[in-house]
Amino acid sequence: MEKAVCLISGGMDSAVSAAIAKNEGYEIYAITFNYGQRNKKEMESAKEIAKWLNAKHKILEVNLRQIGGSALTDNIEVPEETYGIPITYVPARNTIFLSFALAYAEVIDADYIYIGVNAIDYSGYPDCRPEYLEAFQKMADLALKRSVEGRPIKIKAPLLYLSKAEIVKKGIELGVPFEKTWSCYREGEKHCGRCPSCKLRKKAFKEANVEDPTEYEE
Amino acid sequence: MEKAVCLISGGMDSAVSAAIAKNEGYEIYAITFNYGQRNKKEMESAKEIAKWLNAKHKILEVNLRQIGGSALTDNIEVPEETYGIPITYVPARNTIFLSFALAYAEVIDADYIYIGVNAIDYSGYPDCRPEYLEAFQKMADLALKRSVEGRPIKIKAPLLYLSKAEIVKKGIELGVPFEKTWSCYREGEKHCGRCPSCKLRKKAFKEANVEDPTEYEE
Repeated sequence: MEKAVCLISGGMDSAVSAAIAKNEGYEIYAITFNYGQRNKKEMESAKEIAKWLNAKHKILEVNLRQIGGSALTDNIEVPEETYGIPITYVPARNTIFLSFALAYAEVIDADYIYIGVNAIDYSGYPDCRPEYLEAFQKMADLALKRSVEGRPIKIKAPLLYLSKAEIVKKGIELGVPFEKTWSCYREGEKHCGRCPSCKLRKKAFKEANVEDPTEYEE
Repeated sequence: MEKAVCLISGGMDSAVSAAIAKNEGYEIYAITFNYGQRNKKEMESAKEIAKWLNAKHKILEVNLRQIGGSALTDNIEVPEETYGIPITYVPARNTIFLSFALAYAEVIDADYIYIGVNAIDYSGYPDCRPEYLEAFQKMADLALKRSVEGRPIKIKAPLLYLSKAEIVKKGIELGVPFEKTWSCYREGEKHCGRCPSCKLRKKAFKEANVEDPTEYEE
């Protein structure tokens, strides 16, 4: 059985992305980064999703608070509206995460890495764009021992060109337990319903015409 | 004063690379990775070099033992002779280190990253090749908030096309205290003088016709 490393954040997109990998027949090696994100619910959700996938799950301690520069790791309040690149942007986050995924894939001898990035209904992060992923792939094709051996590791982003509503529909089709995923930027017991990430989540279910299983504060 | 992030490992090459950055007039922000390398002397050397450079020095905890797959982080003996890509290769190491350097450079608003990689007398690592660095640069030019703002961060590898002997000569010219640097892969009090890295070090001083200040076990 071929192996795929799947980045699982605890959110909806990475759960659907990994479910697609599973559906394509790969043995799933899930990784989740404990990067100093303020919200701890994400981690519990990631564990639940990995369990649902029947995946091996590795939690990597990669402390991005040492670097700072983001509302997700520093004590900066997340506003309800954002323009341009939001303050929830974490410098080089996907680059750092994909680099670790490359290393892990090489060590366990996996041919694929699945990441749930999305260029349509996304948050304006530069490292979610198709041209970024293409450039990362080209770099990866030169970076590794496996590259030199002619066995490159391929990065797959199956949600790249899907809308949030299409992601929800795809997830439903694959039986993804969305009630176990977490999107909220805040630190509450329930999804706040007001932060940019909660708004995207609500919109996704609404546009997909699917009942939203999320408990929101409001 | 413009800022440059300099990757400092404690070895000769990164010390010379950072000395070149300093000589070019940048304010030096040195970073060193505590990545689970077995040799602890490297870290002491890195601190000494940073002090000599009068640099701000940040030690980043980035544990690559979580990933494994290398004699430098796992309990695998380093042989005296190697062929092809050696077992001291650490999967995706430069990719991970440069990714953190990008994040840090963006947070402190540095325009440059200096890395001491070398494609001539190098150890056969795929992530020391010019084509790898070019591809990393292209990826970096798309990855960051700064990229979108048209202020890319440039990666400089001033030693890329120098021989080890030329690196020694350049270092002597800039007053680099080579006696404070560390190259040995083993865990002894002195340089072993026999591992591939010690052999390269000895050869460098010999070919540069410069007295080797290193104390070797043999």
